[in-house]
This record gives sequence, C-alpha cells and structure tokens, in this order.
Amino acid sequence: MSEGQDILYEVRGKVTIITLNLPDKLNALNGAQYNLLGKLVERADKEEDTIITLLQATGRYFSAGANVADKNLSSVDPSTLFSHEYWLANFVARNVWLTDLFHNHRKILAAAVNGPVIGLSTALLALCDLIYVKDTTKFFLLAPFANLGLVAEGASSSTLFLRLGWSKSAEALLLARPIKGEELERIGFINKSYNGQFSTTEEFNQHVHDELVSQVENLHEDSIYQNKELLKAQRDQLITSSNSREVTRGLYKWLDGIPQSRFVQMSQKERKHKF
Amino acid sequence: MSEGQDILYEVRGKVTIITLNLPDKLNALNGAQYNLLGKLVERADKEEDTIITLLQATGRYFSAGANVADKNLSSVDPSTLFSHEYWLANFVARNVWLTDLFHNHRKILAAAVNGPVIGLSTALLALCDLIYVKDTTKFFLLAPFANLGLVAEGASSSTLFLRLGWSKSAEALLLARPIKGEELERIGFINKSYNGQFSTTEEFNQHVHDELVSQVENLHEDSIYQNKELLKAQRDQLITSSNSREVTRGLYKWLDGIPQSRFVQMSQKERKHKF
Amino acid sequence: MSEGQDILYEVRGKVTIITLNLPDKLNALNGAQYNLLGKLVERADKEEDTIITLLQATGRYFSAGANVADKNLSSVDPSTLFSHEYWLANFVARNVWLTDLFHNHRKILAAAVNGPVIGLSTALLALCDLIYVKDTTKFFLLAPFANLGLVAEGASSSTLFLRLGWSKSAEALLLARPIKGEELERIGFINKSYNGQFSTTEEFNQHVHDELVSQVENLHEDSIYQNKELLKAQRDQLITSSNSREVTRGLYKWLDGIPQSRFVQMSQKERKHKF
Amino acid sequence: MSEGQDILYEVRGKVTIITLNLPDKLNALNGAQYNLLGKLVERADKEEDTIITLLQATGRYFSAGANVADKNLSSVDPSTLFSHEYWLANFVARNVWLTDLFHNHRKILAAAVNGPVIGLSTALLALCDLIYVKDTTKFFLLAPFANLGLVAEGASSSTLFLRLGWSKSAEALLLARPIKGEELERIGFINKSYNGQFSTTEEFNQHVHDELVSQVENLHEDSIYQNKELLKAQRDQLITSSNSREVTRGLYKWLDGIPQSRFVQMSQKERKHKF
Amino acid sequence: MSEGQDILYEVRGKVTIITLNLPDKLNALNGAQYNLLGKLVERADKEEDTIITLLQATGRYFSAGANVADKNLSSVDPSTLFSHEYWLANFVARNVWLTDLFHNHRKILAAAVNGPVIGLSTALLALCDLIYVKDTTKFFLLAPFANLGLVAEGASSSTLFLRLGWSKSAEALLLARPIKGEELERIGFINKSYNGQFSTTEEFNQHVHDELVSQVENLHEDSIYQNKELLKAQRDQLITSSNSREVTRGLYKWLDGIPQSRFVQMSQKERKHKF
Amino acid sequence: MSEGQDILYEVRGKVTIITLNLPDKLNALNGAQYNLLGKLVERADKEEDTIITLLQATGRYFSAGANVADKNLSSVDPSTLFSHEYWLANFVARNVWLTDLFHNHRKILAAAVNGPVIGLSTALLALCDLIYVKDTTKFFLLAPFANLGLVAEGASSSTLFLRLGWSKSAEALLLARPIKGEELERIGFINKSYNGQFSTTEEFNQHVHDELVSQVENLHEDSIYQNKELLKAQRDQLITSSNSREVTRGLYKWLDGIPQSRFVQMSQKERKHKF
Repeated sequence: MSEGQDILYEVRGKVTIITLNLPDKLNALNGAQYNLLGKLVERADKEEDTIITLLQATGRYFSAGANVADKNLSSVDPSTLFSHEYWLANFVARNVWLTDLFHNHRKILAAAVNGPVIGLSTALLALCDLIYVKDTTKFFLLAPFANLGLVAEGASSSTLFLRLGWSKSAEALLLARPIKGEELERIGFINKSYNGQFSTTEEFNQHVHDELVSQVENLHEDSIYQNKELLKAQRDQLITSSNSREVTRGLYKWLDGIPQSRFVQMSQKERKHKF
Repeated sequence: MSEGQDILYEVRGKVTIITLNLPDKLNALNGAQYNLLGKLVERADKEEDTIITLLQATGRYFSAGANVADKNLSSVDPSTLFSHEYWLANFVARNVWLTDLFHNHRKILAAAVNGPVIGLSTALLALCDLIYVKDTTKFFLLAPFANLGLVAEGASSSTLFLRLGWSKSAEALLLARPIKGEELERIGFINKSYNGQFSTTEEFNQHVHDELVSQVENLHEDSIYQNKELLKAQRDQLITSSNSREVTRGLYKWLDGIPQSRFVQMSQKERKHKF
Repeated sequence: MSEGQDILYEVRGKVTIITLNLPDKLNALNGAQYNLLGKLVERADKEEDTIITLLQATGRYFSAGANVADKNLSSVDPSTLFSHEYWLANFVARNVWLTDLFHNHRKILAAAVNGPVIGLSTALLALCDLIYVKDTTKFFLLAPFANLGLVAEGASSSTLFLRLGWSKSAEALLLARPIKGEELERIGFINKSYNGQFSTTEEFNQHVHDELVSQVENLHEDSIYQNKELLKAQRDQLITSSNSREVTRGLYKWLDGIPQSRFVQMSQKERKHKF
Repeated sequence: MSEGQDILYEVRGKVTIITLNLPDKLNALNGAQYNLLGKLVERADKEEDTIITLLQATGRYFSAGANVADKNLSSVDPSTLFSHEYWLANFVARNVWLTDLFHNHRKILAAAVNGPVIGLSTALLALCDLIYVKDTTKFFLLAPFANLGLVAEGASSSTLFLRLGWSKSAEALLLARPIKGEELERIGFINKSYNGQFSTTEEFNQHVHDELVSQVENLHEDSIYQNKELLKAQRDQLITSSNSREVTRGLYKWLDGIPQSRFVQMSQKERKHKF
Repeated sequence: MSEGQDILYEVRGKVTIITLNLPDKLNALNGAQYNLLGKLVERADKEEDTIITLLQATGRYFSAGANVADKNLSSVDPSTLFSHEYWLANFVARNVWLTDLFHNHRKILAAAVNGPVIGLSTALLALCDLIYVKDTTKFFLLAPFANLGLVAEGASSSTLFLRLGWSKSAEALLLARPIKGEELERIGFINKSYNGQFSTTEEFNQHVHDELVSQVENLHEDSIYQNKELLKAQRDQLITSSNSREVTRGLYKWLDGIPQSRFVQMSQKERKHKF
Repeated sequence: MSEGQDILYEVRGKVTIITLNLPDKLNALNGAQYNLLGKLVERADKEEDTIITLLQATGRYFSAGANVADKNLSSVDPSTLFSHEYWLANFVARNVWLTDLFHNHRKILAAAVNGPVIGLSTALLALCDLIYVKDTTKFFLLAPFANLGLVAEGASSSTLFLRLGWSKSAEALLLARPIKGEELERIGFINKSYNGQFSTTEEFNQHVHDELVSQVENLHEDSIYQNKELLKAQRDQLITSSNSREVTRGLYKWLDGIPQSRFVQMSQKERKHKF
C-alpha cells in the first residue's frame, strides 16, 4: 500500500492537506489505512508551518467507515478470530489511539466534507473543529454500531452528545439512524455548507482550502493553539473517559462474535454486488 | 383507581406502551398516578422482550403536570400541611425516585407527544431519549415552578440546560415561560415532528409505534443498552446531583407555604370553571 | 468620567437598567469604564426590589469591546508596558473579577442587544441569562482574540462552548470569525429577536423592558433566584476554571508584547480615520 | 415524644448544642427521632448567634444507628411493608433530606464523639467538619449496610471514600467491618482525641465545647462561612450525586424485602436479651 | 505455557483465588502472562458463587512487574521495534484493557501481598479494593516508569493520587522512588498487615483467605456489589480518563525508543547475573 | 530591592534553587517580594537544564506569609484603601497569578522546609510536589484567613482538602488553627522529615538538594514532565476553579475593610515589639 495513493499528504503553506483517496471504495478504510490516517494526522501535528490540518476526500463519500470487504475475516483462523489477542491488537489499540490523537491535535482540525460519513469515520469527523459540507442535502452521518452488534466508537458517545444534543445523539446511537445534513446544519454541527455551489469535489475542496487560508491570514498562531487548548479543557474529561469505556466494551462484542458474522455477511453481499 | 383506566400498560412485541389516559384532565396526574407511572416504567424496564418503552397519551395534552384539583390540599389538616413529614412523603420522596427511575431506564425511552407538557411531566419528558411530536405548532413545554413558588423539579435544572441550552433553559426556568414547539424543533429537542399529518392522537401514536418497531428491527439489543449506558455516563453526574439539590430546596418551599396557597387558588378557579 | 454619562444606572420597579451610553464610540469601553460596569452590576445585585438586571446600550452597537484609542498605550513607559505589574493590575485582575461577577449575579441578567458585540463584551454577553436582539440581520458576535495575539477572555472558552456548541465556538475562537445573528438565533443563543419591528434603539429597549416586567409579574422572586442557582451549578466548574486558566494565559501574551503593538497599530489607524 | 428528652437542644453563646440523649438505647434513633435531629440541625443553621453546631451524646455510644426494636415492622401490614409508598415515605425521603441538610449546614458542624457510631449515624458523622473523640481505643465506626441487605446511606459511599481513602472505605462498605478509632486517627479522620483524659462523657462534652469556644473567639464569622462554602465546593458534586444514587438503590432493597426480615430477626433477638 | 503453572486459578467456595506462581522470576510477568492474568480476572468476575476475587503470589515478591528478560526485544526486527503497529498491539491495547478490567471488576478484589510490587503490577494492585500485607517492613511499591523512559501505567496517575495523596504519589511517579510499607500503612493504603506473624507465604495466603471467608459469611452479595458500584462512581471519571491519557503517551515513549534500550540493558545485566 | 538579597536564585546543575532570604522577617514577604518569587519560579520553569525547582529559606521560618509591617496600609489614602482598583491590583491579580503559576509549574517543585509556614505561603507550599521538613516538631502550617477577616487564598480550599483530608482542612480553614508537623507527617503531607539530624538550615538545605540530585540522576526528564502532567490532570479542575472563586471572595473582604484594620493593628503591635 503506497501512502501517496490511498491517502494523500501535502503541505501547502499553512495548511497540511490529508486526502482520503479511495473513491471506488467510497473511502472506506481498512485497518492499515486507518493506521496510516492516524500517522499522517500525527505528522501534520508536527509540521512547523502548519496551522490547519485539512481532512478531505475524493469521490462521492467522505468515508464509508471500516472496509468490510477488505477485512477478510473469513481468512482468519477461527481460534484467532475470537481471541483477546486478535481484537486487542486489531480493534482496541487502534481505536483508543486514533481517538486520543484526533482529540489532542494541536492545530485547527478542519474537514471538507464532500459526502456521507459512516462508522468510525463519523467519530473522527466529530472530533474535528470545523466542518464544511459540499451539499447538506446529500450529507448524512451514520453510526451503525448497534446494527453491527458493536458499541459507540471513537468517543462518539461523548462527541455526539456534546455536538448533537441528547435527542439526536440518542437517535444516532440507540437507533443507528442516519442524521441528515439539514438537521446537522440546523443544530450547529456544520460550520458552513455550499449547497449546489460546486459541481466537483475538487472545486469544493479547493474552495474550502482557500477560504481557510484567507481566514487565518492575520491570526496569531500561538493564540489559536492556546484557544484550542482552552476549548479542549471543556471536553477533555468526557472524551478521554468515553474513549477507554468504549474500547473495552467493544472488545467484548468482538469476543462474543456478533460483529464478525455481520461483517462476513456484509462482505459476501458486497462481493455479489460486484459480479 | 384502576390501573387499566388511568394509565394503560401494554406489551406489544419489542415495545412496552404506557399510555396516560386521563384526557378529561389533560393527563394531569395526582400523586398516586405519578407513583403508578413510576411503577409501570419500572415494570417496563424488566420486561424481557422490551427494547423500547413508549410513553404516549390520549386527548389533547401529553400531560398537564400535577393535578391541582385532585390535590385537595384544603382537606389536609393545617398542622400536617406545613410539616416536614407530609412533604417528605408527598413531594421529596416521589420526585427523587421518579427522576432517578427515568434517568436510569435501561431501555430506549421514547415519547409520542400529542400535545403540551407541563410541570413535573416536562421534567420526565426531558429524561426521555427520543421525542416525537404530533404537531409542533400546538406543542409547548412549560416549567411553571417559579410561578407556583416552587423550584425546578425532576432534574429539569440539568436536563433543560443540557437539551435547550442556557438561553432557553433560563427562559423556561427563570421566567416560567412556555417554550414553543417550533423553537424546540429548531434547537434539536424534537427528533421528528409530524405536522398536520395525523388527524387523531390514536393514528399518531400508532404511527410512532410502527416507525420505532421498524427502526429497531435489525439492531442488537445489547448494543443499544450499552450505547445508552455510554450516553448516560455523559450526564449522570449532572442529573443525579441536580436531583438531590432540587428536592430539598423544593421541600423548603412547601414548608414556607407558598405553593399550597397557590394550588388552593388554582383548584378553586378550576372548580368554578366546571360550574 | 461621570457615571451618569458613560454608563447610565436606573432602578425602575423590579428592573435595574444599566445602559452603555457611548454611542459615538460604539460603546467600546476603556478599562475604567469596564470597572464601572462591573461596579454597577454589583450594585444591581444588591438592589432590594430588583429581580432583573437589564443591560442595554444606545446607538448602533451593543459594545465594540475594548476601546483601543483610549488605551493610549503609546504613552505608557515601555518598561512598564512589558511588566508583570502593569498587566496584572490592568488585565488579569479586571478580567477575573468581571467574569466571576457576571457569572455569579443572583438576579436575572438580561440583555437588550441593539447591535454587534465584540471582544470582552462578547464574553460578558455570553454570561447573561436572556438575550433579546433588535435585528438579527444586523447582529453578530466577534471574539477577535486570536487576531489580536490574545486568548479567550471572560470565560468565553467555556460559555461559547456551552452556548454555541463545538463547531461555532471553534469558528469564533480559533478563526476569530464573527458569528452572525441568524446562526445565533437558529442554534438557540438568542431568546427572541424583533427583526425590523422597532425603528429606534430606544423603542426596542423600552419594549424589552416592558415585556420582561410583564413576564415576572406573578413570579416568586425566591423561586427565580433558586432556579438560577440550580442552573449555575451546571456550569460553575467549567466557568470558574476557564476564568483562571484564561487570565494567566492572557497575561503571558501581554508580556510577549504582541497585543500592544496590535493595539497601537489599530489606534493609529483609527485616529487617521478621524482626520 | 418530647424534644427536650430524647434529643436536647441548647443555644449557649456562639454554640448550639444538640445532644442525643437516649443512653439506654445507645442513642439508636427511630425514624421520628432522626427527623427531629434533622429539624434541630436546620434550626441551628438559622440561629443568629451560632457559629458552631455541636453534636454530642450521653452515655457510652455516640449513636447506634437505626433503632430496630422501635421499628416495630412486625406490626406493619404486610402489603404496606413491601410497598413503594411506605419506603418512599419512611426511607427515601428521610435519607435524601438528612444527607443534604448535613452537607449544606452553613455553620461549623462539630461532633464530640463519646463512643461508637453505627449505620446512618456514621454517615451523618462523616458529614461533620470537626470530629473530637473521647477515647480512640473505645471508638469505631460501623456501616453495616451489606450485613442488613441494604446499601450505603447518607452519602457514605462518597464521604467514606473522601475521608478514609479507598482501602478503608472498601473495608467499611464492602465487608461491613468496623473501622477502629486508632486507624481513624492515624489517617486523619479524627481532629483530636482525648484518650483517657476524661472520666465522664459530660466532662468530655464540656471540654470540647469550651475548647471550640476559645478557638473561634477572634475569628470572623463570615470568613468561616465562606471558607466552608469554598471547601464544600470540593465535595459538592460527589456528595449530591451519591445521595440520589444511594436512596433509590436502597429503596429497591426494601422492596425486595431482605432488610425487613433482618430487622425483625434482630429486634426479636434484642427483645430476648431483655428478658 | 500452561495456565495451571504460571498463574493458578482456583474457585474455593465464595472465593476465586488467582495465584501468581513464578517465584523464580519474582512473579515478573511477560506480555502473555499479563494477558492470562487479565483473562483469569475476567473469568472470576463471572463465577456465579464468587464474592471475592483474591490475588496472591508465591515466593518473596508479589510481582516484579514486566519481565524484561523474557521480553527478548533484541530478537525483534528493528523496523518492527519502532513501529506503531508493534506497540499498539503489545503495549497500548493490553494496558488499556487490563486497567479497565481491574477497575470494573464487580466482585471484591482483594490482594494478599507477600512482598514488593513493581511497575504495571503496582498499578493493578492499586486498583484492588482490599490490601493485606505479610510484612510491611519487607513491602514496598515501585513505579519505575520515569526511570525506564516511560510514563505512568495502569491509571496509576489516578490511583496513586487517590490512595497515596499528592506528596507520596509525586515521589512515586516523579522520582520513581519506592514507597515503603510502613508509610503505606500509615497513610491507609494497607487494610491490615501481619508483621512477622507468618513464616511462609502459604500460611499467610491461607490466613488472608480464611479471614475474608469469615468476614463475608453473613453479608448480602448484592449489597456488596451495589456498594462497590457506588464507590466506583467516585473514581470512575478520573480512572477512565487517566487510562486513555496514559496509554497514548506511553506509546510515544516506545516510538521514541528509549524504553527499548533500557530494557535491553537491564535484560543483559540480568543475564550476566545468572552466570 | 535587590533580587540577589531578598530572594536568591541559583541554577546548580539540574536544580534551580530559590531561597527566601529575609530571616530577620521570618521570610514574611511583601507584595513586591511575592511578585519576585513568582517571576523567579516562572524563570526556573524555562531553565533548560533544570529538572527540579527547589524552594528553600534561611533562618527559623520557611515563610511567615504576608509582611504586615511592610504593607504600610496606614500610609495609603483611605479612598484608595477601600477601592476596587487598589485591591484588584494588589490582591486579586497577584493571587490568581501566583496560584496558577505554582499549579502549572512543569518541573518538579520541591520545598526544603526549615520551619513554620503561614498564610499565602502555606497555600504555595501546598502546591509543591515534594515537601522535606527539617524538624517536624518545630514545623506547622497556619492558614489564618478566618482570623484576618479574609478567606482561603492560593487555592488552599482545594489543596488542603486534597492533601489533608476534610477533618484537618476544616480545622485549618474554619478554625484558623495551626496544623502541626507531626500530624502532617502522619497523614502523608510530608515526604520526609530529618528530625534533629541537621543543626543548621544551611546543612539541611544542602542535604535536601544533594538527595534530590542523586534521586533524579538516572531518570528521563520527559517522563518526569509527562507524569507531572498526568498527575496535574487529577487536580486541575478543582484547583483552577478554587482559584477564581477565592480571589473574588477575598476582594469583597478587603472592600468591606476588615482585613485592613486587622493588619494595621498587627503592624502596630509588631512595631512596638521592636522597641
């Protein structure tokens, strides 16, 4: 897997741009790709000239979450597939790390959201500071954990509570229902939406980038970072504790075996679709 | 008082339906009826097949709060009416229990809201997870505690803060003003509203039920319960502490005697109306 | 400086009215004027008959924040201008006191907002309970701290988080962007807006006053105060801790010297404009 | 029951003295007596000249907790004995109120502890500010809730955690073990102990009183009250939330019926002893 | 590795006994053995008849922490040894899981501590409810993280703060100093110590077991579990948030490579010692 | 006032030593000297090679708190002496800054305590990590705020609660009683005491320094700093919120005028003593 292919990384002036670039897979990511995303966000945090880390994507979806076809769980040895060791390494560790990483990003973490977002990627989006949407009518977020026999991931039990309020976060997590772009805009989850303004994702991404660049032009870097620290102090306790609560509960779901069978089903369906 | 009359209880598949059925009294509840409501919610929590506890009502109001006419305070011996013992038993205990009970309900707690909600019932509604409204233009919530010489009840100082934000919760609690359905929808308190779609409360109730049933069809029960626990952890400290703060402050209001005189006034007015 | 001129103070029945009255300066306040505002709010807290403290303003702006022209930093001795002593006395002390004072006001703290609000005044507005706006289309709030080389003031890292949500508070504090009246209304920051209804600020102020008077007419004072205490308990920890975190961080910004040069620049520009 | 007999109340200068005066019953209190204690502590809170509320006792025990013999549960109608209504009135309400009352006492709450303390009285002692012990070798505290089929009461799950640390609070609450005076002194629960110094409880009580009087002689009342408020802010959230958590859990224990049978057993034993 | 050898597991009446049984290695545990310990504690949590899970050890040490000789880091491929993937799987995941697991154990978690405890094992001990020590003069705890180029593990930044206080937890964590048994006893970390009373670890273990059995004899199981839940609510937020903060910080230490070189040094020394 | 005289500053290898050097005044500090202390602690935080900041003193006292003789309040113009402006600059600002500064010191903050500590200096000591005492029998801490008509300062309402427990912090703050060295050692406030071991303060200071140097010899700096951050997260919310609560309450005490008259009295007495 080449870094320059699946997820692009570019430092452009004060902005580091990280692009999910698997449009054919609706930017669903497998484990290695989520790890790569994490490492690139880490790297952006250290870029000396970067003030803004901008997440964007190509194609129709921002990210369809975990790539079930790639997961290839059917090829894993059954004794492994239900072992603590496998899921500690392949679920607990990644989730706790990615969540903490996004939560503690020092720079402005902005997302140019070209389309729907699902699963763990929803949680990561909900850890971003600024959310720009190409077209709210085509955007939704989906946290399908209850549908997969899993539980909330990526501190989403905390971030959705904080950003959507009780009613909508309950709908998202208890009913695994998509929350539509229009609702998300109304309740203040979306910073700005550009409905119908851009015909391509590329134009949209470019525009969000340019707008951000112009907006930080005269700002003092260190003021931004300290304001972010001050804001983070408001959510820190809730997010860090959700993070460790969620991963160990999720682990026991995998050990019970329900999500595996679900993912196998889904991946078989998907393969059928392709033929 | 027959349970099958005032408040109906029915287990229908995965849903336990609890129906406030005093349409003539606008579903205002007296103490015994609030106790009954609590016991039925407790019972629903233990129904093995139930995933969703659905609160609904008949008639024009969801619930007009405490039934002042029934309270019949004029018949209570005055020395009792200003005693610790009376209000500990008839106010403090019920409120602290009902609040904790609704807060800790393990299942999805949904409400099909046919009309306005007032007083303690507002607080209980604000402890529900999902709120469906028949017609936002005819819906409002009212927390008239400052008007009655009481203080916030049912952890509403916490839930309204969390779900309406500071401005609207201040308006609701400091000014005892009704908050209108349209505003509640805009700020995300309402999950879905069916404006004008249903001519009767029965149709509306039926529809909410059916929609919920279809929405949980493929979900994993235990995932739902654990997501609810994870969500509850976000509000637990705030709600439990509000609960004990509110009830003891409320007690001293009754011992000061203001609400009694208010209720007597109101109940006399109401009786007049009936003649 | 006469108190009766710059900031007016009037007790009218149950309402104490405090009026920012520097319309020519868009109600930008210098240090002494912020101190005066604080003392008047303190005084209102003790007015026996007052239930509501109403902040209002004259002219087009509610308050343009710190008056940079007045600050006259160029006349301060340089060794003083970068000293702990100067900024402890002229920044840290005032901010920590004003914030705590507004946060702990016992009465209903209402604001009749005739126009935009900027800087520290934004923070103070966000500590008010009820916010009435003359015309949302002409209203915005601006927290330009990152633009001035400062950090969040007046517990705004806490109040904006609580009242605007993460997305909008990040936009306000990290990007120093104005948040428009329409957005503030949509997400519930504004209790009521009177778009186009009043041609003058005086009529608007009068109307807000009258409406508030009628709304508290039958309410029990002590119930209001206790409800406010109960509500305050929800935010107390967040606000008090933000307060001390913000002021010491702000201090180091002044000691680094960036805001000074900014203010000098701005005040020179402003003077030019006048000629 | 005469107030002047079972529990004495005396205002002496700056000290209000409340004396548990049932030495024959080891100062075990029945429900009405706990209520009386609460009302007297309330009254002390309002005594204008009182700075210190001093709890003391006569005889060998400080308080043996709930008086099981008096409880006379065998005479209560069985359908009542397992009803919500009975335990809401006779358990939930009293506990939530007493706990909040002791926690929020504005004055210095001091205890002159002549001997062992058990049950709910342990919890109330742990809500006192200053604890003076006649003889540590004869003092212990006992929280026998797990032994009675009950759960922690009086916010003891919070106060014992805060004042004894995890190891000793776990021993006290999980094992229902007495914690001895020597240990309590070592870990700082006891302010001062007068081992062997006084032959009678009366002398001891007198001495504690006199010492306290001399210690507050030159202090500023309002400084004391504000320091107490500042200290209380450290524990407020933990105690208020434990309070509501504990009472509702305790309620379900009574509804399950275990404590009743225990108390009946114990009260029968006790009666036997008397013959 | 046989489970019956390295770590023994026995259900004896109401007690599940888990014995660290590597006396030759001072009960230092390698990764697989820590995993096994976790799985056995999980299993004990589900044993129907178990009220107490008793951790004990054989030989002179309770547990010397991570087994550096076994770690055999020198045999790991260097590119792996500094990779995210390796340390996510072999450090982050295990620590976050073990910590949450010990923290959330439903039963009484008791430890019969025969001798010193070091490293991650210190953290796990500090998550136990009851701590019995064979001989305080030969007992110490050591949290050598700062010495190894690591950071606090197992939520020890939270549990040591809560159980040792600031001075001693600072000494333990900032200076990596052993905290001696006598001090630990004085400040209440130890429930009981049996200085010199037992000549062998076996006798000591047997005695602790018997004492615990007799102490829970008449207790109501469910009361114990609920008291534990109530106690846990006091520390839950602090521990869960420390847990996720610690593991991600620890990860970056491994990625920086310092602990590896330390462990290699130490393991070489140890090997020398053996020849 | 020369920095090299009143408070000494020396960087010696990994330790920055700050010495209170006013033995004739028992190291009581006036406002300017407290400011100087703050600036030196700030400077130590930035010393590249410093791991430990060691506070020590010369003479018999560690620090007798605020120097009342120097305060020279009698010479201040009365209208100033009761003005907001004076006390904001000379009390609020300094306290909030010093408290935050000590709380957030990145290095190990150790104190070699040669003798008693009083007032604000007590609060600052309680913000240190490691406390070494020359002779516990001659050491006490005194928080005389209630005696002076003031309230807790320097977040002592939080740090004394956290480090002394409720009983002893209540005694210290509500009764303004000295807490003796022996008690402080028993409850774990003191890391180590050298009773009678050193005849002079110089020898004692030297010894503490040397011991600390040897203790950090093999430790990894960054591990220390991160462990300190992790520990600080446990107290951060409590301390920062106490800080802003305390200073504004203290301000109103000065505005009421009580402490002024007290200080004047005391300073007159002191002057008499000198003649």
